[in-house]
Amino acid sequence: MKKYLLLNSKGIDQLRLIEEQTPTPALGEVLIKVEYSGINFADLMMTYGLYPDAPAYPYTPGYEISGRIQSVGDESLNHRIGERVFAGVKFGGYASHIVLPSWQAISTPQSLNDQNAAAFPVSFLTAHMALNELARIRKGDRVLIDCASGSLGSFCLQLIQAQGAEAFGQTTSNEKRKLLSERGWRVLDESTKQEKFHVILNSRGGQSLSQDLTRLSPAGRVIVIGASSAIATDGPRWWNALKAFLPMGLLWTPKLIDGNCAVMGLNLLKVFDHPEFLKLQMAELSKALGRYQATVDQVFHYREASQALKFLESKQSKGKLLLSWNP
Amino acid sequence: MKKYLLLNSKGIDQLRLIEEQTPTPALGEVLIKVEYSGINFADLMMTYGLYPDAPAYPYTPGYEISGRIQSVGDESLNHRIGERVFAGVKFGGYASHIVLPSWQAISTPQSLNDQNAAAFPVSFLTAHMALNELARIRKGDRVLIDCASGSLGSFCLQLIQAQGAEAFGQTTSNEKRKLLSERGWRVLDESTKQEKFHVILNSRGGQSLSQDLTRLSPAGRVIVIGASSAIATDGPRWWNALKAFLPMGLLWTPKLIDGNCAVMGLNLLKVFDHPEFLKLQMAELSKALGRYQATVDQVFHYREASQALKFLESKQSKGKLLLSWNP
Repeated sequence: MKKYLLLNSKGIDQLRLIEEQTPTPALGEVLIKVEYSGINFADLMMTYGLYPDAPAYPYTPGYEISGRIQSVGDESLNHRIGERVFAGVKFGGYASHIVLPSWQAISTPQSLNDQNAAAFPVSFLTAHMALNELARIRKGDRVLIDCASGSLGSFCLQLIQAQGAEAFGQTTSNEKRKLLSERGWRVLDESTKQEKFHVILNSRGGQSLSQDLTRLSPAGRVIVIGASSAIATDGPRWWNALKAFLPMGLLWTPKLIDGNCAVMGLNLLKVFDHPEFLKLQMAELSKALGRYQATVDQVFHYREASQALKFLESKQSKGKLLLSWNP
Repeated sequence: MKKYLLLNSKGIDQLRLIEEQTPTPALGEVLIKVEYSGINFADLMMTYGLYPDAPAYPYTPGYEISGRIQSVGDESLNHRIGERVFAGVKFGGYASHIVLPSWQAISTPQSLNDQNAAAFPVSFLTAHMALNELARIRKGDRVLIDCASGSLGSFCLQLIQAQGAEAFGQTTSNEKRKLLSERGWRVLDESTKQEKFHVILNSRGGQSLSQDLTRLSPAGRVIVIGASSAIATDGPRWWNALKAFLPMGLLWTPKLIDGNCAVMGLNLLKVFDHPEFLKLQMAELSKALGRYQATVDQVFHYREASQALKFLESKQSKGKLLLSWNP
C-alpha cells in the first residue's frame, strides 16, 4: 500500500495520512519506494496558505525524495529494480511510493547515503541557480547569505568557496551565529554591518530588500528567493504576511539604474516549465554529487510531519529536515 | 583663451559659445588642450531636459575628451607637457581646455589616434559595465543589444565576441540592419524574433522593458541603461517622455521571481561616486585600448554642435560623433 500525506487546508496540523493501492508505472515511468522525503521552507509557507504556486487543497507537498526502484514501466529504461535513486519532484514528495518519468530519477552514487541524497535536489539547485546561474559569482566577490545556517546556506557556502569568493552569513540566533563561524562563514555582526557586498541572497522579503539594495557594491546584485519573514510565531498572521510581501513587491527601476545594481528573482519550481534548462540543471546536480555535501539536521518519522514543520517554523533547524518512510 | 559650450536651457539650439581666460591647473592637476570631445546620447537627453543627473542650467555637457597636456600643476605628476591624453569627465567636456586631477587623464597609446581616444571612455565603459560587471556574460550566452549600430553597440559586439557569446543586434532602419550584418551581428528580424536571450541590453525604456522580460531564457537578465524612446521627432514631447519613462519605472518583484530573471540598472555617471571602483574601471579601460576598437562616425566642428545633436536625434549615426576644437 502507498501512504502519503495530504494537506487538507491551511494549518500545520492539516496533514492527513492516506493509504491507497500502490500505483503501477506506465511506459517510460518508474515506481520508487521512498526512503526519505526532504522538507523545505516552501512546504511551511504552504501550510500558512502563502504559497502562490500551490495547487488547490487538498494536495501533497514535497519536492524531493530518495529511495529504491520498485518496478519499471518497461525493461528498456535506464533504471533497474532495486537501484538506489533520488529525484526532485513538483509536489507529491511526501509519499512512501512515487511514480516518475524515468529520466527524472537520478542514480544515487555509492558514496551518497539515502538521507543526503534526499537533501540534495532543492537546496543544491537553489544555491546553484542563485549563485552560478543568476548572480554568476566569481573570485573576489563578497557574498552575503541571509539564511546561512540551514541546508541551502551550507550549499551556498560550498559554492562560494569553490569560486574563491568570500562568504558572509546572517542568521537568527547567537547559537546559530556560533555554528556559522565553526562552519567557515564570516558572520554578519556589528563589526561587519557596514560591509558592502557584490551579491546578497535575500530569503526574508519585506523591507530587507530595500535595505539590501543599500548594502551593495557597484554592479552588485540581490537575489530574491522568498519572503520567510511572513513566518513568525508572534503577531497576527495577516499582518506578518502583509509586511513580508508588500514592501518587496514594487521596485523602482530608476533606483536600480542609479545604483548600478540588479534585482534577480528565483523560483526553482518554474524551472520545470523549461525542459531543456531543467535537464541542464539536473546535469549540474549530478556533477555536484561527488563534490559537495548536503547538511542533514534531523529525520522525523512520517507520522511526525507536523512536528517537523513546527520545528522548521521555530527557526531552530541547522540543516535539512527529512521525513522517513520506514514503517 | 578657453572656448566652451554652455547649455543655457532646454533645446538643441541652446548651446552658447563662451570664451574666457584659460584656467591654470592647481597642485595635482593638469590642463588639457582638447582636440576632440565625444558626444553621447545623454547629451541629447539633456537638451530635451530629460536628464535627471544634470546640474541646473546653464552648464556644459560632455563626458569625454582627448587632447594634449598643456601645463601641469606640479612637476612631480605622471604627465608631461605635450603628452597625448584622454579622459572621461563628469560634465564639462564640450570645451577647448579642461583642468582635471592628474590621475583622471590616461596616456593615449601611440596606436590610438585622438579621434578614437575621445570615442573610447563612455561607450567602452558602458559596454564593459553592462556586459562584464553587471551581466557577466559568458561563453554560449545569446546577447541582444537594442542599440547595436552605434558606438556603444560596436564595443558590445567586441566584448560579446571576446567571451565566445553570440551577438544579436537590433536597430531602427533597413540600412542600419544591413550594416549590422556586415559588422558581424546576427540581426534581429522576423526569423529571429522568437529567440530567447540570456542577456538583453535595453536603452529604449518604455514598454520595451516588459517585452524584453518575456524574451529571456531562464536565469536571463535585462540591463536597463536609458529611455532613448523619449527622443522622437514626431508627437508631443511630454507624451513621448511619459511613454518612455512611466512604463519602465515600476517593476513587480514577483514577476522576476517567477521568471527566474533579473533587471539590472546602469548609470555610468554614478561610478564617479565610488572612487575605488572608478579606478578599477579605468584600469579596465586602459587594458582595453590595445584590444578593442572605437567606431567613429563623424566629426563636427565645435560651432556645429547643435547640428551634431540633431544628427544624433535623427537616429542616423553609425558610430561615435565627435566635436573638433581645431580653430
